[in-house]
Amino acid sequence: MANLVTNCGFSPSPAVKAHCNSPSYGHNFIRLQNSKSSTSSLNLKSSSKRSNKLYVTCASTAVQGQTQTPLTGSQQASGQSSSKPKKVMVIGGDGYCGWATALHLSNKGYEVAIVDNLVRRLFDHQLGLDSLTPIASIQNRIRRWKSLTGKTIQLFIGDICDFEFLSEAFKSFEPDSAVHFGEQRSAPFSMIDRSRAVYTQNNNVIGTLNVLFAMKEFSEECHLVKLGTMGEYGTPNIDIEEGFLTITHNGRTDTLPYPKQASSFYHLSKVHDSHNIAFTCKAWGIRATDLNQGVVYGIRTDETAMHEELSNRLDYDGIFGTALNRFCVQAAVGHPLTVYGKGGQTRGYLDIRDTVQCVELAIANPAKPGEFRVFNQFTEQFSVNQLAKLVTAAGAKLGLDVQTKSVPNPRVEAEEHYYNAKHSKLSELGLVPHLLSDSLLDSLLNFAVQYKDRVDTAQIMPSVSWKKMGAKPKTVSV
Amino acid sequence: MANLVTNCGFSPSPAVKAHCNSPSYGHNFIRLQNSKSSTSSLNLKSSSKRSNKLYVTCASTAVQGQTQTPLTGSQQASGQSSSKPKKVMVIGGDGYCGWATALHLSNKGYEVAIVDNLVRRLFDHQLGLDSLTPIASIQNRIRRWKSLTGKTIQLFIGDICDFEFLSEAFKSFEPDSAVHFGEQRSAPFSMIDRSRAVYTQNNNVIGTLNVLFAMKEFSEECHLVKLGTMGEYGTPNIDIEEGFLTITHNGRTDTLPYPKQASSFYHLSKVHDSHNIAFTCKAWGIRATDLNQGVVYGIRTDETAMHEELSNRLDYDGIFGTALNRFCVQAAVGHPLTVYGKGGQTRGYLDIRDTVQCVELAIANPAKPGEFRVFNQFTEQFSVNQLAKLVTAAGAKLGLDVQTKSVPNPRVEAEEHYYNAKHSKLSELGLVPHLLSDSLLDSLLNFAVQYKDRVDTAQIMPSVSWKKMGAKPKTVSV
Repeated sequence: MANLVTNCGFSPSPAVKAHCNSPSYGHNFIRLQNSKSSTSSLNLKSSSKRSNKLYVTCASTAVQGQTQTPLTGSQQASGQSSSKPKKVMVIGGDGYCGWATALHLSNKGYEVAIVDNLVRRLFDHQLGLDSLTPIASIQNRIRRWKSLTGKTIQLFIGDICDFEFLSEAFKSFEPDSAVHFGEQRSAPFSMIDRSRAVYTQNNNVIGTLNVLFAMKEFSEECHLVKLGTMGEYGTPNIDIEEGFLTITHNGRTDTLPYPKQASSFYHLSKVHDSHNIAFTCKAWGIRATDLNQGVVYGIRTDETAMHEELSNRLDYDGIFGTALNRFCVQAAVGHPLTVYGKGGQTRGYLDIRDTVQCVELAIANPAKPGEFRVFNQFTEQFSVNQLAKLVTAAGAKLGLDVQTKSVPNPRVEAEEHYYNAKHSKLSELGLVPHLLSDSLLDSLLNFAVQYKDRVDTAQIMPSVSWKKMGAKPKTVSV
Repeated sequence: MANLVTNCGFSPSPAVKAHCNSPSYGHNFIRLQNSKSSTSSLNLKSSSKRSNKLYVTCASTAVQGQTQTPLTGSQQASGQSSSKPKKVMVIGGDGYCGWATALHLSNKGYEVAIVDNLVRRLFDHQLGLDSLTPIASIQNRIRRWKSLTGKTIQLFIGDICDFEFLSEAFKSFEPDSAVHFGEQRSAPFSMIDRSRAVYTQNNNVIGTLNVLFAMKEFSEECHLVKLGTMGEYGTPNIDIEEGFLTITHNGRTDTLPYPKQASSFYHLSKVHDSHNIAFTCKAWGIRATDLNQGVVYGIRTDETAMHEELSNRLDYDGIFGTALNRFCVQAAVGHPLTVYGKGGQTRGYLDIRDTVQCVELAIANPAKPGEFRVFNQFTEQFSVNQLAKLVTAAGAKLGLDVQTKSVPNPRVEAEEHYYNAKHSKLSELGLVPHLLSDSLLDSLLNFAVQYKDRVDTAQIMPSVSWKKMGAKPKTVSV
């Protein structure tokens, strides 16, 4: 089994010294603005000369106006409109879901700021991984978006675990909504070794606490849209409801938080977040929507498809790659589909085009002050074996001979279980899902075939064991 | 309303720089051993000269033998005995519950090591607080214990958030049981400001994660006895069970973790711990007992009463003081009993003599490998109003004119609610409770009267507001 980690070690996870995702740089503010300079270069000014802030100018020939003016839920209901676009801070806006969401919201006329420390890119360097698709730098992504659409996305580069940085971002941007994708989001990553487990829980829990404090302090009306995970629920032997369960016990009844049974330090970090957020809604009147998202698949959204510099990342490796995306890449390169154990693991899935739609719906229909709202964000349930069959059939249509191989399950999880999770709340708000059809699978497979020369097959197999993980840092790469 | 914090600021809670409780010192091992030196001085050797370890010698005229040999639950069941005493690591063994427990277990013949960074003493300095009772240094406490009983308690001074320190302590002591009191344990402390909230969650969650990793790595058979809190459950409108609830929903049934509704960043940290521990039991086969403890009252245990240098601390202030202890001190100094809001808040309570008994029972009857066991550790339920009446009546018997005053509730909590929490599992293991009787209240009141000249009445009133807490550090004392 391949080891995972580069021999440069792992810097941003120390249990004893740092809360920062990104210890190599301070908090720099990069604002991409209309300017007279050329499009081809970034004008980076020293952070030390300008109160620790970087002002990045980039050019655009297009005008900076907003073409659409989103309304709040209450505005929609009452028919009111506002001349001021709604401001959405997308924390983690350089990542897979975050980038697609930031562009989608910008395209819909929201005023968007991305807050990100870019540490996801560092993980790739340290672990020797790479996206299937080449991705542009965040600066070039945003400049390209500006040049194509005339729309400005502000960029705040820094670590939300650094409250000083986060405070400045909140005070500067004054968001109406904060969409929070800014967490370490891989279960296997959190199970590599102790330092990654500690990093994941510290980074995710403290980052979210800081967001809550920033909202309380600087943006009382701001609506938090927080990315949770369906994995918070585990696989109970009863139906999974959306966040809460009405329980009758010994003749009395109450509606309580749905019991949580997460099965990795990553999934647990999201459980911790949910409890913390629920408390602040009650204690401080924070308005929050917890999106318990299923497994996301797909690559193209309307916006990322506009230019290759807007391309989203696609992870196929054993750490960050998720089931369906990984299977498509495996099929494209002639690698057997790797089913973990019996393959009866059933989860909720959704197309990335529905991720961006769901977030937009949550923003447009905000939670009330003090409300802690939970939506299960997925559109269909599949077992791993069902996905393998679908990819095999879709591959055959493209002339690919797709094999499936069962590999020892690196995780600790039920491989055959009951699973029935409710997901009606987003539909009630208007979600029109992109279901997994032959055509989507064809397109995803074709996409994988297009980039198959970029695949490093050594990264495909699972290399992190839930049971064997230890305290010792994993620092040696293959 | 008085501010709480000394103007020296608050050093061990930075969100951006430290995981350590005790940034001012590294990890030093202090072993108190039989030696030929005099009893009157500690022989501290430089940590830099001995691989970062301090060996502290202290004298004792008594022999170092063990007088009793505790057996494990299975040994008791099978009638086996072992010549080797069971080793118990008491993390947080310098605190209120930890110190009483360490002495009790040592007295019962367990080989005890205390692991503590002493940060609780620092909090007193920083917040301008003090125990009602004078307490000796941990070094003098342990030397006195040795001189009185001949029993050795090892001492490891350092921070469990520092995994290097914790590893050495585990490898050196090789515990059979780890009793984990080593957390920031005050709800008001966690609600002072953002930095204390972050400190509390980071310290508690990461410290516990480290303990779990140390057990996995160095002491696979070790049994974790973790102090949780009844506050994890909140005040649901149904009976509170011990950790788990069997739920029938839409015709299907499962036994799931009891839903959690904690109401401070401190209580939430314990919820996070419970989820993390449950996962490691399942994934790694850790054996764990989560003691969801009620509010502890009382001061004397058989062991702490042996000598004034063994005295336990008693907190009566608005940050660390808990309801009944605080009421007794208020009654002693003629301060009205401070009932928060309506006073209908009902909780489970127990005598500190039962805390030590419960921990002993948990150790002697360990959880099985992979078992996550939850005991509700309290003996009686009282509302705050009931406690105020009991203290008023007991005070009258001693000639004290006790008044009660309702003060605005600084917390966000139900002030009138259903509360019926089960607590049979420890009774089934043999707990014989010390119920709150007139005689106990008399003794506690007399104790408070004895030390009333040490009371700083400025520290009595609640000074931390759940709703008003903010991101800004509270750094100015009264």
